[in-house]
Amino acid sequence: MADDSSARIVAGLRGWIATAAPGARLPSTRQLVAQYAASPVTVQRALRTLTGEGRIESRAGVGTFVRAARTHRTADYGWQSGALRSPHTPIDSGAAALRDVPNDVIALHSGYPDRELLPARLVRSALTRATRSEAALGRSPAAGLPQLQSWFSQELGDATPAGLTPPVPSDVIVVPGSQSGLSSIFRALLAPGQPLIMESPTYWGAILAAQQAAARIVPVPSGPAGPDPAELARAFEETGARLFYAQPNYANPTGAQWPPAVHGRILDIVRDHGAFLVEDDWAHDFAIASSAVPVAAHDDTGHVVYLRSLTKSVSPALRVAAVIARGPARDRILADRQAESMYVSDLLQAAALDVVTNPSWTTHRRQVRDQLRLRRDLLARALHDHAPLAELQHLPPGGLNLWVRLPDGTDLGRVTQHCERAGLVVAAGDEWFPAEPTGPFVRLNYAGPHPAAYPDAARILNDAIARTAH
Amino acid sequence: MADDSSARIVAGLRGWIATAAPGARLPSTRQLVAQYAASPVTVQRALRTLTGEGRIESRAGVGTFVRAARTHRTADYGWQSGALRSPHTPIDSGAAALRDVPNDVIALHSGYPDRELLPARLVRSALTRATRSEAALGRSPAAGLPQLQSWFSQELGDATPAGLTPPVPSDVIVVPGSQSGLSSIFRALLAPGQPLIMESPTYWGAILAAQQAAARIVPVPSGPAGPDPAELARAFEETGARLFYAQPNYANPTGAQWPPAVHGRILDIVRDHGAFLVEDDWAHDFAIASSAVPVAAHDDTGHVVYLRSLTKSVSPALRVAAVIARGPARDRILADRQAESMYVSDLLQAAALDVVTNPSWTTHRRQVRDQLRLRRDLLARALHDHAPLAELQHLPPGGLNLWVRLPDGTDLGRVTQHCERAGLVVAAGDEWFPAEPTGPFVRLNYAGPHPAAYPDAARILNDAIARTAH
Repeated sequence: MADDSSARIVAGLRGWIATAAPGARLPSTRQLVAQYAASPVTVQRALRTLTGEGRIESRAGVGTFVRAARTHRTADYGWQSGALRSPHTPIDSGAAALRDVPNDVIALHSGYPDRELLPARLVRSALTRATRSEAALGRSPAAGLPQLQSWFSQELGDATPAGLTPPVPSDVIVVPGSQSGLSSIFRALLAPGQPLIMESPTYWGAILAAQQAAARIVPVPSGPAGPDPAELARAFEETGARLFYAQPNYANPTGAQWPPAVHGRILDIVRDHGAFLVEDDWAHDFAIASSAVPVAAHDDTGHVVYLRSLTKSVSPALRVAAVIARGPARDRILADRQAESMYVSDLLQAAALDVVTNPSWTTHRRQVRDQLRLRRDLLARALHDHAPLAELQHLPPGGLNLWVRLPDGTDLGRVTQHCERAGLVVAAGDEWFPAEPTGPFVRLNYAGPHPAAYPDAARILNDAIARTAH
Repeated sequence: MADDSSARIVAGLRGWIATAAPGARLPSTRQLVAQYAASPVTVQRALRTLTGEGRIESRAGVGTFVRAARTHRTADYGWQSGALRSPHTPIDSGAAALRDVPNDVIALHSGYPDRELLPARLVRSALTRATRSEAALGRSPAAGLPQLQSWFSQELGDATPAGLTPPVPSDVIVVPGSQSGLSSIFRALLAPGQPLIMESPTYWGAILAAQQAAARIVPVPSGPAGPDPAELARAFEETGARLFYAQPNYANPTGAQWPPAVHGRILDIVRDHGAFLVEDDWAHDFAIASSAVPVAAHDDTGHVVYLRSLTKSVSPALRVAAVIARGPARDRILADRQAESMYVSDLLQAAALDVVTNPSWTTHRRQVRDQLRLRRDLLARALHDHAPLAELQHLPPGGLNLWVRLPDGTDLGRVTQHCERAGLVVAAGDEWFPAEPTGPFVRLNYAGPHPAAYPDAARILNDAIARTAH
């Protein structure tokens, strides 16, 4: 798509079309080839782009024509308020972490790693192989391609200590991204109105999925060592909850990792209450200073439902993740997936499997670890040197983010506005709290573009805090 | 994946591994190249396959080794019944139309067209271009790639008569397949327990999505000319429903198409009741003897929510469809999609757009129309000549299926079993009824493999009916 000659022809023809009469015939491909000194393939690509934009239409064997513009009248959809009434689950207007921003700002708001941290060459060669294979035209079984199920179960099995039964491939359900996995887990394992315990703060996408499932969210505070087990036990007792959602490794947004001793205590509490732990291992591929051993590796009693995504570490375009669950829970989640989307694209599954079984994937992950360490330390140093008003309470051992506390009483909305005017985009921390925020926080992603600009970013942030203080 | 030499090496090594000790080192790539007279690339592919199956593991710079097999103990997940209780929505065990069957049976049960009716060359060249483009590593906006939104709105706009306002690109929400679209529409526009009117019989996937949304399904009978408008009006009045799901063109399973006069009457009834028509235009690309003008083309008041998929006509691996809706309904559906899956793979969207804006797409659709006509007529003729006990009440003007009534009192389960033993797979009609089936039907797909076997299929079906009759 981002082909320079093709873009040049598109731009040229857009101008031509703007002044042409509806129905006017475009110059022939041959004439355009001569005019733009481009190949016929490039000209065809430009024409396809303009067709996609609805500016022109081709009639086979006749030529290509300017489409007639339509007049639009304003419509009143007020009747829909009567049909729809108030929403039965809250409507979210879209998260800060998904915002697209211009290339010239310093973007620390995103939830995704920068293009340069992705295994671009591996992804493209995997997609090229998948395109040539049967996967380009195939339909996967509902639970996923057997070889990919096998890879996911093997990965978790490798972390399973001797004496415990590792998962088997049929415990794995391949889903189109971890958000879909979360939605299905909550829908399948909770009836509307039932309690769901979550860490606070926690991933905004999980809060969104919980709201969509009409769960009653029960927050438990969680710090650098995870939640306090005694507090978690009280939450189970008080509410009768059967489900606890958590990110034990490099939690989003705080980067916290549960110490090994906490793993065991929390697993015991979950079991004692006949409950499930939904373990969202979102940052499995983003370890820096420790390793990400899943809690799920220590459970073979079906109490942990494990979620592992490849979207962030492989490519945002390869939406592939896995839910690993055992027993009736697995069956209910699979039934929900079938009702929701039937199956996941064969092509994406085949390409994802190709990437993660390629020997270069290990090398790539090692490089990403080094890169993340450099970038994390660079941003932490920049905050230390240039943003005395921003407090980094905990240097995370993995993940993509720093979780930074601003002075009490800071008006977060005004701070983020000031930052944006100065060319810095940050994510206000409020979205990560399932209940009231417990303070003014911002989340700073150190995996985005332009790490060289971190000192500038820190200065802008500090200045914004200072300006908005009373 | 389906590479002959690679498969040969995989098969050979599987045998070798089965008799090898855990931890044994495999022959080197160089030795395997010599042994199998294959290229290093082919050997690597075979090793990746075996790695994916968990049979071997590579240690960088050391070699490739046989993995240790694990012992598995049986687990008791009975505690989960206490945590999960009874399901709050029904659990479906998977539909007949999605079953995979061996290549040597006559398969008339599938919901998908055979490989030879897909635009394989177009799909592969589109995927190749998308793989080289930014789409391979990109993240699409939540509502979809703007150019693809534009194409979908243009297509519906082209069918919109003068005087009505055509949809605009921002009315379009790109979804990963029509099943996801249906799930989101029902979840977003219905609260649990609210009534949803559906044609009977109708698409089993829609029934599944309605059950998942905990809708109260209200069936209205629908024949070759669609539902009786007076009966539909009564259903709205009796239940206070605000939502009516239908397939006005080439309904699945019956192939029925609403006459133009019925379009207008039904649209009036929907408007009079302040309701939505969810129009599932699943067979838009499978017209045979008429054209598929959407009801949505005649509505610019936001009363029709339009669903249009490319998965079945382009490739099952390109899971891309569109919901076109206006007003607050559109906003609620988009919010549900964001909570459910955030966004659709850029790569699949770019490839789908490339296919449908390619001039050869028009040629391909014409060829499919001719093929479907031939196959439909061949199967209808075979039933007429060889299956007097099966009654085809209506030759459909489009779609992929014949809907065939068997004699009253036929035991459908026994008929399908008899057929399978004789090498024919058919789908029992019961799955398409939202309430009790009104008779013994089978759905026969004429777009599957082996059309030359239709006379045999008809003979087997007739014989099965005769044998199971009392």
